[in-house]
Amino acid sequence: MLNLAMMLEDSARRLPDRDAVVSGSTRLSYAAVEAAASQVAHVLAERGIGRGDRVALSCPNVAYFPVVYFGILKSGAAVVPLNVLFKSREVAYHLADSGASAYFCFEGSEQLPMGAEGRAGFEETEECEHFFLITADPAAASPIKEAQTLGQAVADSPSRFAAASVEATDTAVVLYTSGTTGRPKGAELTHANMIMNAVTCHKLFGVAEHDVHLVALPLFHSFGQTVQMNAGFGCGATLVLLPRFDADEALALMERERVSFFAGVPTMYWGLLSAQTSGRDLAAVAENLRMAVSGGAALPVEIIRQVEEVFDVQIREGYGLSETSPVASFNHPGRKPGPGTVGEPVWGVEMKLVDDEWNEVPEGEAGEIAVRGHNVMKGYLGRPEATAEVLREGWFRTGDIGRRDEEGRYMIVDRAKDMIVRGGFNVYPRELEEVMMTHPAVSLVAVIGVPHQRHGEEVKAVVVRESGADLSEDALVDWCRETMAGYKYPRLVEFRDSLPMTATGKVLKRELR
Amino acid sequence: MLNLAMMLEDSARRLPDRDAVVSGSTRLSYAAVEAAASQVAHVLAERGIGRGDRVALSCPNVAYFPVVYFGILKSGAAVVPLNVLFKSREVAYHLADSGASAYFCFEGSEQLPMGAEGRAGFEETEECEHFFLITADPAAASPIKEAQTLGQAVADSPSRFAAASVEATDTAVVLYTSGTTGRPKGAELTHANMIMNAVTCHKLFGVAEHDVHLVALPLFHSFGQTVQMNAGFGCGATLVLLPRFDADEALALMERERVSFFAGVPTMYWGLLSAQTSGRDLAAVAENLRMAVSGGAALPVEIIRQVEEVFDVQIREGYGLSETSPVASFNHPGRKPGPGTVGEPVWGVEMKLVDDEWNEVPEGEAGEIAVRGHNVMKGYLGRPEATAEVLREGWFRTGDIGRRDEEGRYMIVDRAKDMIVRGGFNVYPRELEEVMMTHPAVSLVAVIGVPHQRHGEEVKAVVVRESGADLSEDALVDWCRETMAGYKYPRLVEFRDSLPMTATGKVLKRELR
Ligand SMILES: Nc1ncnc2c1ncn2[C@@H]1O[C@H](COP(=O)(O)O)[C@@H](O)[C@H]1O
Repeated sequence: MLNLAMMLEDSARRLPDRDAVVSGSTRLSYAAVEAAASQVAHVLAERGIGRGDRVALSCPNVAYFPVVYFGILKSGAAVVPLNVLFKSREVAYHLADSGASAYFCFEGSEQLPMGAEGRAGFEETEECEHFFLITADPAAASPIKEAQTLGQAVADSPSRFAAASVEATDTAVVLYTSGTTGRPKGAELTHANMIMNAVTCHKLFGVAEHDVHLVALPLFHSFGQTVQMNAGFGCGATLVLLPRFDADEALALMERERVSFFAGVPTMYWGLLSAQTSGRDLAAVAENLRMAVSGGAALPVEIIRQVEEVFDVQIREGYGLSETSPVASFNHPGRKPGPGTVGEPVWGVEMKLVDDEWNEVPEGEAGEIAVRGHNVMKGYLGRPEATAEVLREGWFRTGDIGRRDEEGRYMIVDRAKDMIVRGGFNVYPRELEEVMMTHPAVSLVAVIGVPHQRHGEEVKAVVVRESGADLSEDALVDWCRETMAGYKYPRLVEFRDSLPMTATGKVLKRELR
Repeated sequence: MLNLAMMLEDSARRLPDRDAVVSGSTRLSYAAVEAAASQVAHVLAERGIGRGDRVALSCPNVAYFPVVYFGILKSGAAVVPLNVLFKSREVAYHLADSGASAYFCFEGSEQLPMGAEGRAGFEETEECEHFFLITADPAAASPIKEAQTLGQAVADSPSRFAAASVEATDTAVVLYTSGTTGRPKGAELTHANMIMNAVTCHKLFGVAEHDVHLVALPLFHSFGQTVQMNAGFGCGATLVLLPRFDADEALALMERERVSFFAGVPTMYWGLLSAQTSGRDLAAVAENLRMAVSGGAALPVEIIRQVEEVFDVQIREGYGLSETSPVASFNHPGRKPGPGTVGEPVWGVEMKLVDDEWNEVPEGEAGEIAVRGHNVMKGYLGRPEATAEVLREGWFRTGDIGRRDEEGRYMIVDRAKDMIVRGGFNVYPRELEEVMMTHPAVSLVAVIGVPHQRHGEEVKAVVVRESGADLSEDALVDWCRETMAGYKYPRLVEFRDSLPMTATGKVLKRELR
C-alpha cells in the first residue's frame, strides 16, 4: 500500500500537539487535523465511497482544505480540487468530467458566493450524489436549505480512521489543467507521484526541525499543494494559510508567525517588494526566512536581486506543471545558482528538448521540454487520445519551449502557445519581458502577439508603470528599439493600472489579446 | 513510471566520475557502473526479457553485483538475488520457484565453486532459458564449456539503455526468506517499496556530501541491499565491497578508504571489537565513521557500549525483515537513544502488537509485531495462502514477539519460533543472551531449547568464552541461577570455539538444537 495520507498521519503520530494549520484566529494541531480528516473519511465510507471513487473539493486556503483533502485520501478515494473562482457551469463541467461521486464546497462570501455556485453546479450534475456545504462555523445552520453542512455530516463520526490500503499506482489527485490545448483535462496523479514529489521537496529544501510556511498559493493548485501542504505536513511544518494574497497581510503574517518558508509565483514577490513596510520589522522577517521558492511563471532576475536586498534570501526558481506533480527542475541549493534559469532536473527526473517528432534537438538549440521520471502523471482522466499525444515511452512533452546551458540548467524560453511569429521570426515574449523589467519605470509587463496584416502578428507590451514614474508609450518603444533586435522589439505599448491574473497568480495573457 | 534503477541513474547523471564501487583493486565510477548495467539490460532485452519477467543473480559482494542488479532493473525485469552458499539443488529450487527466465551466476572459487553449483542447478531447471557465467576477469574464456560468460554476452552491447517504464507496483526484487514457517518463499517487493525504503534511509541517516560505505553485509540480503547499496547509490555514496566479512580486513579498509558508514549484524560488531588493531590508526577510523547501523538480530547493549568506547560512534539499531524492504523501525538520530530497543517505526510506517487473532494486545504486554506502511511487500510470489496468513488490511504479521516501552520504542523479545516453553512458562532466549553477555568471560552466546521429558523443553546456553578466560560450565550455571528467575535460567551450558552462522551473520540456532 502507499497512501498520500501518510504525510498527515505520520506527523500526527509523531507531533500530535504541534500546530499543523494556522488560519485567521484558528490554530489546529496535527492531532486535530488528523481527527477531523478521519471524520470526513468516515462520512465517505458510510456512503460507500472509497478506493476507485473521486471526490471534488472547492475550498480556499482555510483549515478545511487540508482536513477534507486528507479525509478523502484516507477513505481511499481520489481528490479533485477545483478552482475557487469557478461559476456553476464550470463546477458542473468538472464534476461530470471527473465522475465525482461527492462534492465538498465552501460557502464562500458575499463577494465570492462559492456555496451557491457550487450547489447550482452540483444540481446540474446527476451522477454526483452527495453534496456537503462547508460552513466557516461548523456549528452553523445550513445557509442553503436543501444542503447538508459538513458539520452536520460528521456529527457522530469517530475521530479515528486508518487510511485505506490503496496502491502506489492508484490515483490520489486529479488536477484540472487546460494543458497545451483544448478544454480543461484532469491530470491523474498517483500516490507514488505525489509522495515522490513531496520527498523530492524534502531533499531540495532540507528538512528543518520546525518550518513555518506562509501558504499564499492556492492549495487547489499543484504548486502550493505539493511544495507546501504535502511536503510541509510530511515533515511536521506549520502552515499559515492566506486565502487571498495580499502583500501587506502576507508581510504581517511573516513577522507574527516567524515564517521560515515562502513559496510564490513571481507576481507575489513583486507584491511583497511593494508592500507596506512601515511598522514592520523587516530584519526579523529576513532573519526567520530561510527558503524562498518561485515557480509557475518566469521570474525576472530583477526581482531575485531586489528580494535578496530586502529579505536577505536568494529566491530559488523551479519549474513544473500540474502533469508533473509539479516539481520537475530546480535551482538546487548547494549548486551554482542560475538566476534566469529553472535549474536542473530534480532527483530521479530527466529532461530533454525535443522537436515535433519527439527527436532531441541539436545541442544548443531551443526545443520543447520533455520530462521523464517518478513525477509524470498517469494520464488525462478518460482521455486516451489526449494522453497519447503527450506521453510516449515514459516521456511527457510539456508544451514549454526551453534551452539548456553548458552547466545543464534549463531556461524556459516560452510557453509554446505564447510564442509570437512576426514576419516569419519566432519571438519569445518571456525574453522581452525580462529585458523590459530592467527599465526603472516598468513595474510589471506582459508581452503578447496581436494580429497584423503584413507580419501576421505584431509584438505588443502591456505595462504597469512604477507609481509616480514619468514615462510615455513612445519613449518606452524607443528604449526597446535601442535594446532589442529589430525583428522583435515591441512596436506597440499600452499602459494599464494592473494586469488580469489567474487565481494562481499568472498573468492572463488571453484576456489581453 | 517508477523504476528502482533511478538510484543508480540519477547519480550517474550527476556525479559520473565519482567512485561508485571499490572492490579489491577495482574502482568503478558511477558512469562505468551505469554503462555496464546498460549493457546487461541490452543483453536481456535482446533475448526478449523485460517487464513481467524475473532474472536470478548469484554473486558475492563484488562490482558485478550492482552492475547486474541494476542491469536487470533497467530491462524492466525483477531481480531474484540468491544466497551465494546455495548448492545446485537449492539453486534449482529457487530458479523454478521464482520462474526465472535467465540466471547470472558468479564463477566462485575453489573453496566455493558457485559457478559449477549454479550451472548444475540451472540445468535441472527447464523453464530457465539463459545462463550467464560471471567471470572475475571479464575477458577470460568460460571455465564451463557450454556456458556463455557475461563478458562474451555483452561484447557488442551499447552502453546506454534507458530504464524501462515500469510501474510503482511492479515487482522490483524477489527476496527469498523462510518466513515464519515452511520452505523458502519469495517476498515480492515493488519499486515503490524499495525506493521508499531507500528514501527512508536517507531521512534516517541524513545525506552526507560524500559517504563511503563499508559493505560487509551480503548484497543478496535486504539489509545491505537497501540500506547500503540502494540508499548509498541514491545519494552518490562510494561502496567499498567486502565479499566475506573478516574483521581485520574490514578494519584495514575502514582506515584506507576513510569509511564513514558501517552497517552490520551484531556478530560483525563483535568481530570488529576483537580485530587486530596493531598498526591501525583507530583514531582516524573513529574520526571518519559517522554512522554505525545494526540490525538483523538482537544487539547486546554491551556491544553498543564497547563500540562507543573504541570507535566513538553510537550504534543505532533498527529492525526489519525481508518482507518489509527491510527497515521498519529504528533508533532515530535526534531522538532519545534506546539501547536494547529497536526504536520507533520509521517515517510512514506503523507498528502494533497483536495476538493470534490479529487483536491488539493490552498496553504493556508482549505480542506479535505487525507492520503497516509503504515498506510492506506485495505478497509471497505464487503463494496466495501463505500471503493471506500474514497480510490483512495492509498489516503484515512478522512472527517476531515484541514489547513497547512508554516512549513508544519497540523491543524484540524474540522470534516466535525461537521461544522456549519450559514447564508451561515462556522463556525468551534473547533476554537470557543479553544478560549472559554481561558476564566478563562470555564472548558470545546462543540460548536454545532442548527436549526434556518433564518440562517439555529445557533451556540450554551454547557459549564462546573470551580467549584466555577461566570459566567452567558449572560456575556459569551458578552465576545464571543467581542472576535470573528460577524458571528460566539455563541449567545446561556447553562451550564451543565458535557458533554456526548464516551467510547473513545470524547464529544458526537450528544447527545447535
Ligand atoms: N534488531 C533486531 N533485533 C532482533 N531481531 C531482529 C532485528 N532485526 C531483525 N531481526 C530478526 O531478523 C528477522 C528478519 O530476517 P530477514 O528476513 O532474513 O531479514 C526478523 O524477523 C527478526 O527476527
